[in-house]
Amino acid sequence: MQIAQVDVADDFIDLGVGQPGLSLLPTDLIREAAEHRFAHDGALYLQYGAEQGDGYFRHDLAQFLTGSHGFTAQASRLFVTASASQALDLICTLFVPPEAVVCCEEPSYHLALHLLRDHRVRIVSLPTDENGLIVDGLNERLTSLRPAMLYLIPTFQNPTGATLPRERRERIVELARRHRVLIVADEVYHCLSYGEAPPDSFGSYVAGGGVFGLGSFSKILAPGLRLGWVQSDDETVQRMVQSGLLDSGGGLNPFTSGLVRSVLELDLLRPYLDFLRATFRRRIDAMTDALHRYFPEATFAVPRGGYFFWLRLPDGLDATALLPHAETERVGVRLGNLFSSQDGFHDRLRLSFAMYDTETLIEGVRRLGRAADRLGRRR
Amino acid sequence: MQIAQVDVADDFIDLGVGQPGLSLLPTDLIREAAEHRFAHDGALYLQYGAEQGDGYFRHDLAQFLTGSHGFTAQASRLFVTASASQALDLICTLFVPPEAVVCCEEPSYHLALHLLRDHRVRIVSLPTDENGLIVDGLNERLTSLRPAMLYLIPTFQNPTGATLPRERRERIVELARRHRVLIVADEVYHCLSYGEAPPDSFGSYVAGGGVFGLGSFSKILAPGLRLGWVQSDDETVQRMVQSGLLDSGGGLNPFTSGLVRSVLELDLLRPYLDFLRATFRRRIDAMTDALHRYFPEATFAVPRGGYFFWLRLPDGLDATALLPHAETERVGVRLGNLFSSQDGFHDRLRLSFAMYDTETLIEGVRRLGRAADRLGRRR
Repeated sequence: MQIAQVDVADDFIDLGVGQPGLSLLPTDLIREAAEHRFAHDGALYLQYGAEQGDGYFRHDLAQFLTGSHGFTAQASRLFVTASASQALDLICTLFVPPEAVVCCEEPSYHLALHLLRDHRVRIVSLPTDENGLIVDGLNERLTSLRPAMLYLIPTFQNPTGATLPRERRERIVELARRHRVLIVADEVYHCLSYGEAPPDSFGSYVAGGGVFGLGSFSKILAPGLRLGWVQSDDETVQRMVQSGLLDSGGGLNPFTSGLVRSVLELDLLRPYLDFLRATFRRRIDAMTDALHRYFPEATFAVPRGGYFFWLRLPDGLDATALLPHAETERVGVRLGNLFSSQDGFHDRLRLSFAMYDTETLIEGVRRLGRAADRLGRRR
Repeated sequence: MQIAQVDVADDFIDLGVGQPGLSLLPTDLIREAAEHRFAHDGALYLQYGAEQGDGYFRHDLAQFLTGSHGFTAQASRLFVTASASQALDLICTLFVPPEAVVCCEEPSYHLALHLLRDHRVRIVSLPTDENGLIVDGLNERLTSLRPAMLYLIPTFQNPTGATLPRERRERIVELARRHRVLIVADEVYHCLSYGEAPPDSFGSYVAGGGVFGLGSFSKILAPGLRLGWVQSDDETVQRMVQSGLLDSGGGLNPFTSGLVRSVLELDLLRPYLDFLRATFRRRIDAMTDALHRYFPEATFAVPRGGYFFWLRLPDGLDATALLPHAETERVGVRLGNLFSSQDGFHDRLRLSFAMYDTETLIEGVRRLGRAADRLGRRR
């Protein structure tokens, strides 16, 4: 019976899966936090929770974000969600009328676009370069498209890994405000930085209105807890607090908020994040070497954060043609085209290093290289 | 800092609150279940979960429902949600176009209507009697209104406590199918029966299509877990499984599903439900006596299940006029009018026995009687 979202056969290495491996998930840490919570005020976290999210948890979360996101976060501007996906879903219900235009990056996280489409919006994607959304021409595009929302993954983007520089962030916020376009910044990889810190998160721009900064514990602690947050201005936070979903059900995940409150108060998250970053750094090094060795035709920027390598295949090679050979070699990838709203990126692959240990990642890349060899021999 | 959804001052008795009291919440039971889960396969429940919900949990849940809901439930037709409210929210996003008509009972659960309104639907309420939705004239109403959805609380309704008899259920399902109206049956009180068992839940009608049966652990275990389920036909369950929200975030609450899997496998839920029902029976008896004694002008049917008394005030008395006197006496109620979509039920009050022990409930009713006396003296 299926427990996890993804089942991979034992002899298969799916480099496409953007999920942490089971061995990374901090069972002992969560167990310790649970014991701590039960020993204190466990019953309170079994009750319907405050709509905005438990005040103690928001206080601790604001402290954590202040230490990790580059600016002073305020508990009053934090709204606790049941993941970044759920936050995006609620924002669409409350703030984006059906048939509205939503702009996103080309390429972007395909499953967020799937979620947006369920809300009957029209998606229009905007061009990016190695530094994320291109700002030249944005004013004109916002003028002609009149979108309701701009959905961005500004830091260690999925799939490209690109990070928007501070100047672009400021310009985007300025333009979006001028055109009354809501910015939804999906910043779930912000804490997974393996080199220099990224620019301040979009949470730093919320006071002026029209900006949502989405965070989550899925990439930095445990996806199964279904716990995340939105940063926005006071008025917008109150609109979410006063929505029907919250009015009826109370806070979105009180019990797991209580657990993570203990994780934060016992100072368990910072050492775990250090462990995660060190692990991912090692994996990136190993995978970079393996790609150079076994798949030298592919070009890529070494990831500085997040979960992904974004490979460009050699001239004219369609990634789709690689698939049957990859299947034969028992290795999985995600086609770049999957992340496009314009049927582009046929020469790209997204590989993730989140699921497997270095040895398996190296073996996966070796198989991918063999698949490319097979394809080459047949061309 | 606020933790719970509702804060009530120490000297105030809010008989309006429809939430379990903290002392009822099973901290030790959840702790035992958590230890059991951590001792087995805890890490799996920290991962992104299967979109439909963990297979083992659905298997256990189907067994539980088969024992308690009057028919054989099937794990394949269960979809795990993050509460009945969240289920209603997702159903609206996926299956109800904006501007569509949604029919509900008059009166109905006001916060569900708030949630529906966030989805921009038009709510039209249909008349009820002491046995719930009136079937006479329903065919004509569905013909003229052409609603997309019929939202019902068929068992121990909120606020009236009414339960739809089997014949009405069958007729409603038949008519809804004929008119292609989706039925959403919010059945969160089904297991809280204090006398004879209610008719089979709407879960028993799902195989023929067009029916959603919504359940939740909020009323029978702990609201803070944010865990519920939908029963529907295979095709509809798969549409939910394949939605963007699930595709992106995986199962809606894997970690708390794992906890409740252990609750079910350790057979902790049945004795807890026995305890809850015995407790609520005692409270109903005490409150019935207190109402007869301190507030004899009010008439009501003794609740046979659920959380609520639905009082009718004596001739011509507007419940709103009672409010300032109730406030003076430090007792809270919910006005009947709150549950109306037609500005009706001005002579009604909803009282709940879920929050307080019998002694406090009796004191609350005594205060309510004094408030009515004050009002009487001023008229």
